[in-house]
Amino acid sequence: MARAARGAGHDVFVLLVDGVSDADYSDFETGRTALTTVGRAISELRRARCRDLVVVGNFTRPDHARLEWDWGTLKIMPRLLQIRFGGDDRVNSIVSSLFEAQGFRVLPPLAVAPGLAAPAGLAAGRKPSKEEEEDIALGLSVLASLGAFDVGQALVVSHRRVLAIEAAEGTDAMIARCGELRRNGRFREAAPSGVLVKAAKPGQDLRMDLPTVGTRTVEAAVAAGLAGLALHADHVLMPDGQEMLDMATRQGLFVVTVDMPASAGPGR
Amino acid sequence: MARAARGAGHDVFVLLVDGVSDADYSDFETGRTALTTVGRAISELRRARCRDLVVVGNFTRPDHARLEWDWGTLKIMPRLLQIRFGGDDRVNSIVSSLFEAQGFRVLPPLAVAPGLAAPAGLAAGRKPSKEEEEDIALGLSVLASLGAFDVGQALVVSHRRVLAIEAAEGTDAMIARCGELRRNGRFREAAPSGVLVKAAKPGQDLRMDLPTVGTRTVEAAVAAGLAGLALHADHVLMPDGQEMLDMATRQGLFVVTVDMPASAGPGR
Repeated sequence: MARAARGAGHDVFVLLVDGVSDADYSDFETGRTALTTVGRAISELRRARCRDLVVVGNFTRPDHARLEWDWGTLKIMPRLLQIRFGGDDRVNSIVSSLFEAQGFRVLPPLAVAPGLAAPAGLAAGRKPSKEEEEDIALGLSVLASLGAFDVGQALVVSHRRVLAIEAAEGTDAMIARCGELRRNGRFREAAPSGVLVKAAKPGQDLRMDLPTVGTRTVEAAVAAGLAGLALHADHVLMPDGQEMLDMATRQGLFVVTVDMPASAGPGR
Repeated sequence: MARAARGAGHDVFVLLVDGVSDADYSDFETGRTALTTVGRAISELRRARCRDLVVVGNFTRPDHARLEWDWGTLKIMPRLLQIRFGGDDRVNSIVSSLFEAQGFRVLPPLAVAPGLAAPAGLAAGRKPSKEEEEDIALGLSVLASLGAFDVGQALVVSHRRVLAIEAAEGTDAMIARCGELRRNGRFREAAPSGVLVKAAKPGQDLRMDLPTVGTRTVEAAVAAGLAGLALHADHVLMPDGQEMLDMATRQGLFVVTVDMPASAGPGR
């Protein structure tokens, strides 16, 4: 993301978050904060003269008991406490509004690095079978229906049966569960089978927590014996780009992009 | 279930299924079958002069490669092969129709032993808080919405956030996942918190795969640090009855029954 944003002509400062940032940013000017030192995060961003902010990474909610009581944190504590409640979208819109109240502009990652989205028409590996296309359509309908409740960015479908639905555990853990279902006999179809369907929630704030897939997703899907990935076109971040697609193709996994259905479910 | 049916005046024959039946049925006349010997199951039921059939237990789909090719199995093979496809309701209606085509009547467990349902108005342990009642309402709406896709008998909600949704893994594994979410920091609310909401799917065939809770559910919920159970009134089987409620109360877990909402979700 940092490289793509720089490639698109942006000046990039990277604010590393303890326990979240694990890549090598030695090519970039960087600062450091913890999830629990909000005041410090804001002063680091000001020091670097940042105005626009892009939030990426696999965050967990902060432990409120460990928040540091600096002045910046204290000022926004009422909003911070609300992060306890609701689904991820709600939390993300609170976080965005926190930074915006401090004068920053929170941008969608895809506004800064549009080339990182899985594009419409993407197709790597073999073509999904007609049956797999039906599974993908079922999966998209379920995700569209769940989105109204601010839950569900991904699920796995095989033979018109929803095997696993992601809630708070994250996509990789949900995929791993499908391997477990194979081992304990609850999912008996010979591997490779099962499609991971991943999409943004309807009405999701695309500035935060954009669905993301990468080489780790491919590794997890291969380990679980899945057949392919179906990604919501122009709404799923694919930061590893061609490297991920090459890995998927090598491992026999298909990758396609799909559109969300307009309606939310069957029989309504 | 066998004891309750006998108590209600029924003659009871128990057909034990290898790998599924693990209780002591020495008080009953019994036969034995495997999930893969359908012809044998039918001849055992005929031998015992059974006419009405109640199916209970934690079944997995059979491994088709291991089906035994006896005459009874061969005759119904086309239907058996369809069990590969679709959600649990679809599979259950196929299984019911298989037995009905052989002249058996498949009855809902609650028709034979109505006293085993979690009744409307049930309340054990403390009263759920106003916030927990909101979490339960959210959970019921999500389950109602998912039911249309033949998935989702249970989920866990805390602070208006859906933490886990059950698909093929089963309720106990889904509850255990909430304990895991606590340990890995994705669910930070102090235990006990989080409500298990369990319901029949809208339009579910109540003859098969009725949602069931027991002492094992209570043990799993306590281990995961949950606060209580909300059960769909008159639609959830509670075979351990008072023993389960006493255990829940002792362990500080509340148990209540609730009605499903008439509409399927927010904003529709």
